[in-house]
Amino acid sequence: MHRTKIRVAEDALDANQTIARANRDDFDRAGVAVVNLMSAPGAGKTTLLERAIEGLDGLRVGVLEGDVQGSIDADRIAHLHVPVTQLNTDPGFGGECHLDANMVRSALPEVPLGEIDLLAIENVGNLVCPAEFRVGEDARAMVCAVTEGEDKPLKYPLMFRTCELIVVNKIDLLPHLDFDLDRLLTNIETVNPTATVLTTSARGGEGVDAWREWLAGVAGRRPA
Amino acid sequence: MHRTKIRVAEDALDANQTIARANRDDFDRAGVAVVNLMSAPGAGKTTLLERAIEGLDGLRVGVLEGDVQGSIDADRIAHLHVPVTQLNTDPGFGGECHLDANMVRSALPEVPLGEIDLLAIENVGNLVCPAEFRVGEDARAMVCAVTEGEDKPLKYPLMFRTCELIVVNKIDLLPHLDFDLDRLLTNIETVNPTATVLTTSARGGEGVDAWREWLAGVAGRRPA
Repeated sequence: MHRTKIRVAEDALDANQTIARANRDDFDRAGVAVVNLMSAPGAGKTTLLERAIEGLDGLRVGVLEGDVQGSIDADRIAHLHVPVTQLNTDPGFGGECHLDANMVRSALPEVPLGEIDLLAIENVGNLVCPAEFRVGEDARAMVCAVTEGEDKPLKYPLMFRTCELIVVNKIDLLPHLDFDLDRLLTNIETVNPTATVLTTSARGGEGVDAWREWLAGVAGRRPA
Repeated sequence: MHRTKIRVAEDALDANQTIARANRDDFDRAGVAVVNLMSAPGAGKTTLLERAIEGLDGLRVGVLEGDVQGSIDADRIAHLHVPVTQLNTDPGFGGECHLDANMVRSALPEVPLGEIDLLAIENVGNLVCPAEFRVGEDARAMVCAVTEGEDKPLKYPLMFRTCELIVVNKIDLLPHLDFDLDRLLTNIETVNPTATVLTTSARGGEGVDAWREWLAGVAGRRPA
């Protein structure tokens, strides 16, 4: 019984890899760079995207919003007049806690790949399963809010290990928390010594320029 | 292919119900009340449990800690000299993002049911999948931190709907956030009008007495 379960999981991950490669081929043909943005619920992914998009002159950005239900974040992004596509995991997929390559593929006909340079995929808020499913992205980034505690890299190591960028957000709240930023950074270093780490306040603006430059840099990896 | 996937999910949930009932029978025989405590990562479940246990005189509490990896929370609870059992979803189950009835069952030989009145099961930090799996509990409670934003009940409705108690935690940070508490409470009311809602600061102590009394009340539902 246990064996069967593992086998099903492996098959599902194999299929996911195949579809992720097909997505990647489509992104390549369109010359679109893709970032898979992940975090726990409420860490600030949408606000960070809003702040970056507001200042990303010369780069055409599109957003694919993954949520179990609703379109709250997509509605926020749409105010910035960039193409945004909502992908709900609830009706068609049974309330999945993550995006996988096939879900992203099902949304691609709605994404205007010919009109954008960079696609930001905002994953479902969850520190576990989204890390297991590639969707065809060029880069993976995650947001970790200081309000979540210093221990999260040790408790959710796969997520922290799989991302090349870790954004430590909500640093404007540090004076009001019992929080040791050095301890968080040490824990991040323990599980992912090669990650780029940015500290930001999406609300106050600290670090947002560096986050925006990182996004532009991912787009710049594509041949012009 | 899609049909097969749905069928597998239904079979898994059926099996989970069967095992949850077996767990419940064991809890009944031992006269132990069980609370399944859920939240997003870093909302304050462990701190709330610490605060409650410190003052729960006359009630013998045990804790089952669910984590993908590590024993950070179990080590914290152990300092309070109550029986605590660590259940990791990583090695045996492939990094599951939730506890299910079978995982809890596998841990029961380590839980001293004859020596406790109340078992608090701290689930994996995740607002999606834990809500789908009963583990044999008497009551489900969740913690929602005000730092996560007002929109979470609308984005993760199953979790908010399945819990009879919703603890709104970290209210000591309200003066430092752009956060509308009334809007959160309205959103909770929209998805779960019958829930008991408590506002707490695990750090500052506000509302902790009411949380402790709620836990004692769950234990009190058991015939003496």
